[in-house]
Amino acid sequence: MKITKLEPKKRQGLVVVITGHGKGKTTSAMGMALRAAGHDMKVCIVQFMKGDIYSGEWDGVKLLGGQVELTATGKGFCGIQGNPYSFDEHRTNAQDALKLVDEKIRSGEFQMLVLDEINNALQLKLVDLEQVMKILDNLPPELHLILTGRDAHPEVIERADTVSEVREIKHAYRKDIEPQPGVDY
Amino acid sequence: MKITKLEPKKRQGLVVVITGHGKGKTTSAMGMALRAAGHDMKVCIVQFMKGDIYSGEWDGVKLLGGQVELTATGKGFCGIQGNPYSFDEHRTNAQDALKLVDEKIRSGEFQMLVLDEINNALQLKLVDLEQVMKILDNLPPELHLILTGRDAHPEVIERADTVSEVREIKHAYRKDIEPQPGVDY
Repeated sequence: MKITKLEPKKRQGLVVVITGHGKGKTTSAMGMALRAAGHDMKVCIVQFMKGDIYSGEWDGVKLLGGQVELTATGKGFCGIQGNPYSFDEHRTNAQDALKLVDEKIRSGEFQMLVLDEINNALQLKLVDLEQVMKILDNLPPELHLILTGRDAHPEVIERADTVSEVREIKHAYRKDIEPQPGVDY
Repeated sequence: MKITKLEPKKRQGLVVVITGHGKGKTTSAMGMALRAAGHDMKVCIVQFMKGDIYSGEWDGVKLLGGQVELTATGKGFCGIQGNPYSFDEHRTNAQDALKLVDEKIRSGEFQMLVLDEINNALQLKLVDLEQVMKILDNLPPELHLILTGRDAHPEVIERADTVSEVREIKHAYRKDIEPQPGVDY
């Protein structure tokens, strides 16, 4: 069978938002990173919330031969029961993450940038809408930007090219099944 | 910061369905494969529809150091304008793919199995509901099974542990932006 290789007439950076309350937002961003790596693109992932609990993608991306760089800057979910850090600590963290994002964009080294759970960070006021819009307004034309996390801001959705809402139809944890490695983390 | 490593008291294979009409179903499955590879698990992906058009994940998974095996068995979307293959050819293909799935399960070699776009194959009658249910009814207890594709069958949803519906809020192609490598394929 003949395999067609698509090539767009015009390469164009897309702004993709993956939001909603179902399973598969960060996961979807990891899939795009994998796909981009397959196209020999370089990907930078900055995780805004994750950082306190190990997740398989941290080692998964290391297998991708240096194509994908991941920094988990977070201290977990601010305000969630049991999280020991203050709002100010979370905010400082997220603000440092924004500086990192700015550096990574300026480096010109990447063709895809994932801001994982930045929607949550915005919702929790760890970053400001103006800061996110400033990133969106100053994107290099061929850089893909992926923003994940529940409760995406309407202005971010308005500005995006592709937006998916992942709805929960059901989730194993509601049957008291513990999170399982590979699938859940 | 202390990083917590979760470990469930009981390892349990999950049945995960990613359905809906939005962007991010196959992508999400690829993300789970990446995450599982990070946990040193072995993953087998069988693509039921894809095969005629190159997609970045084909080379992406090859970077994962042999952790993830992917076979694209499809000849594209049956009944879609321009697809040159007959229903019988598509069905034969999908039936061969099921045999491959059966072999892979029996091999005991994998901790995660992705049946990519099998929901479409079922909807298009390339495979039968009984065949899919037979797989679900005979799963090894620790094998994760991921089923993707739009229009998941209600009986498959009923049987699954975690189900997400990816809804399209907007998609770049509606603005006549061509599919872009890394993001769309």
